[in-house]
Amino acid sequence: MHFACLADAETGIMKLPEEESKHCVRVLRMEAGTAFKITNGSGKIFDALMREAHPKKAVVELSNPQKGYDYWPFKLCIAIAPTKNNDRLEWFLEKATEIGIDEIFLFQSFHSERRQVKPDRLQKVLVAALKQSMKSRLPKLHDLQNFNELLKQDFQGRKFIAWIDEGVTDLLANAYKKGENCLILIGPEGDFSPEEVNLAQANGFETVSLGQARLRTETAALAACHSIQLINQIT
Amino acid sequence: MHFACLADAETGIMKLPEEESKHCVRVLRMEAGTAFKITNGSGKIFDALMREAHPKKAVVELSNPQKGYDYWPFKLCIAIAPTKNNDRLEWFLEKATEIGIDEIFLFQSFHSERRQVKPDRLQKVLVAALKQSMKSRLPKLHDLQNFNELLKQDFQGRKFIAWIDEGVTDLLANAYKKGENCLILIGPEGDFSPEEVNLAQANGFETVSLGQARLRTETAALAACHSIQLINQIT
Repeated sequence: MHFACLADAETGIMKLPEEESKHCVRVLRMEAGTAFKITNGSGKIFDALMREAHPKKAVVELSNPQKGYDYWPFKLCIAIAPTKNNDRLEWFLEKATEIGIDEIFLFQSFHSERRQVKPDRLQKVLVAALKQSMKSRLPKLHDLQNFNELLKQDFQGRKFIAWIDEGVTDLLANAYKKGENCLILIGPEGDFSPEEVNLAQANGFETVSLGQARLRTETAALAACHSIQLINQIT
Repeated sequence: MHFACLADAETGIMKLPEEESKHCVRVLRMEAGTAFKITNGSGKIFDALMREAHPKKAVVELSNPQKGYDYWPFKLCIAIAPTKNNDRLEWFLEKATEIGIDEIFLFQSFHSERRQVKPDRLQKVLVAALKQSMKSRLPKLHDLQNFNELLKQDFQGRKFIAWIDEGVTDLLANAYKKGENCLILIGPEGDFSPEEVNLAQANGFETVSLGQARLRTETAALAACHSIQLINQIT
């Protein structure tokens, strides 16, 4: 069953925006009468019926709004320093959306090798992964910000900073308890500077390890995301 | 600290093969006197000193063999049906090497969209990830085989087949117990056929779920790999 995304989806007859029309009609080859699903990205999924398969302004009929399956009783937020190679950041966004994440923060760190991102492009990666994994809730991607601003976030829940240091032996998976909201900071290729770690600790972040394995930035971020989802599933 | 890989590494003076020489001298810009590490891919890491920084036949001095940090008291094997898009399979190989895996099996399944792989290329991805993550043990990549052959593998440990089916609610993370050897089968884009699942069950494989999220083939394989490593780390 194909999925499309329409932020203001409502029951009834609706027009799809140009890009989504093109995707449905040109890429997925939908015709008048094709049944599919439309998610509004905010938790609802509709049954959809293609009425006019126009490649720029398709018309669809939406009915039967349902709540998506992708709800969990905690909030999972990850803050990542953009990777030098942009594909690696995009890969993280795709995989985290599949596995399940609520919010993603991007920040500039002392050792960051990338100081700019293209938010539109990253947003497209999230929407594609949302549709592909048939989810109803689009992760919220925050604008790139300075590390100091990030630390000042008002966040209700556990705050962790993953740091590769011999003194840090507490595993995220042991420190985190099922059901807790959490915000986890993942550093750039050169890791956080000791000053950044101190500053994070002063702002209520707990240092944790992601295990013995030496992981790339994007792998560490995904491992953290999957750890939280898994701990919440284990009985 | 840079890492190179030399399968027959021994203490003393050794020549690097052409590709590794090129990588050390041209890419990493090592000079005579540069200190680095060499892994033999079989569990040992040596201190290395570049003696002759020749871009085709570099000469190095190896000393102080040490056991790598990447040992774990269980065997983690994953069998995956190659993805339609080869990059996705390569991505899995890279990430699984970072996170930690012992053996990777490739198999052809009823719904497989890819029937061929390039073993040399996949091997290079594993070696690059090994060096990047400073590991000492290169995962063993088996040749592509038929699903039936795969099922007949002599394997001492738990055998699982991940299947997306309403009747399958046992989570891998709940079924698997710390310390057990395991072999986990991950299906192709169109999932396993019911006949394949029956056949696997008849050969001692237990059906398990990887959770509610709808994951791509390579994401499912990585989630399974990370689940096993995580369960073995949680206290």
